[in-house]
Amino acid sequence: MEERLEKQLAFSLEIDKEKNILRQTHLSGHGRRENDAEHAWHMSIMAYLLKEYANEKVNIEKVMIMCLIHDIVEIEAGDTYAYDEVNLASQKAREDAAKEKIFSLLPQDQKQEMISLFDEFAANETPEARYAHAMDNLQPLILNHSNGGSDWREHDVCARQVYGRQEKTRLGSETLYQVTDRILQENIKKGNLKEI
Amino acid sequence: MEERLEKQLAFSLEIDKEKNILRQTHLSGHGRRENDAEHAWHMSIMAYLLKEYANEKVNIEKVMIMCLIHDIVEIEAGDTYAYDEVNLASQKAREDAAKEKIFSLLPQDQKQEMISLFDEFAANETPEARYAHAMDNLQPLILNHSNGGSDWREHDVCARQVYGRQEKTRLGSETLYQVTDRILQENIKKGNLKEI
Repeated sequence: MEERLEKQLAFSLEIDKEKNILRQTHLSGHGRRENDAEHAWHMSIMAYLLKEYANEKVNIEKVMIMCLIHDIVEIEAGDTYAYDEVNLASQKAREDAAKEKIFSLLPQDQKQEMISLFDEFAANETPEARYAHAMDNLQPLILNHSNGGSDWREHDVCARQVYGRQEKTRLGSETLYQVTDRILQENIKKGNLKEI
Repeated sequence: MEERLEKQLAFSLEIDKEKNILRQTHLSGHGRRENDAEHAWHMSIMAYLLKEYANEKVNIEKVMIMCLIHDIVEIEAGDTYAYDEVNLASQKAREDAAKEKIFSLLPQDQKQEMISLFDEFAANETPEARYAHAMDNLQPLILNHSNGGSDWREHDVCARQVYGRQEKTRLGSETLYQVTDRILQENIKKGNLKEI
């Protein structure tokens, strides 16, 4: 087999491991913990269906592939919970080493393309990255909301922390930030999310 | 909230259930059974990375969204194993009823768009559908191959059946069909896949 295709297939097999990286979010219906691959699948479809709410015009093909691959480094680096301040501090160094290792399985041109997409997402400076971040926030929010905010309670998260993170949603989609705000206020009122 | 956005979010929450639809394929490393959402995530990334091998030029944005949504009807209709001839006979009727029910959660224009993508995939007559089918076949093949063909053994599947299904891969990608053929021959030789 040609070396190029061999490398592409080796990478394709390696990323199967992303299905074993568990997040803190639980599936709807008070289900089990979600994994990274499921999260990426879900936010890619949402990105496609909600694209009319992006603040800026986006290249949706680019948004979708960005969503699909944005957590692949976690195969090596592990998932970092959005409100885990200790591990958040080391996240970038761990993920930089991981991205070099994993994407090196691909042919050079595709390695560069994937790293560039990953970095663009992380830098959050383009319309596509900002909108993808809005999806990265909204997808677990609707699951957690459907479960009465149990993920917040489990981790003793307060509204200030959640609002801090959701600022990124606002950069990607003002409309979806308004939805987020309504959901958060409802959960504060119900006592599902601590106010302070 | 505007009714349109409310419907889009209701659909987004509903499709979370796809993560509970188990397939017969097992994850690499002799892992647990894979679910539909993971399968769709995996084949969408593979579609993007292997697009140079499509027989015909494809609109990759369309291929990706097609891959991402092609199994959503199974939330209602259940998964039908590729070599389960009894349930294959009723598959179309079950899935037609399911697609009407699930996609009706969306606003009318998006319902039509999703049904049209689903039908295009099923009809397998466009370059995008043919290439997406090649991914639908290749993704479980590489997992099963990595596990020494255990999924075939578990279901007593023989080479004739597998080759029959893989004809669709050939329509989407001659190059990837050649890879498939080599993998199947290797598994026959090793006794992982019965010859007749």
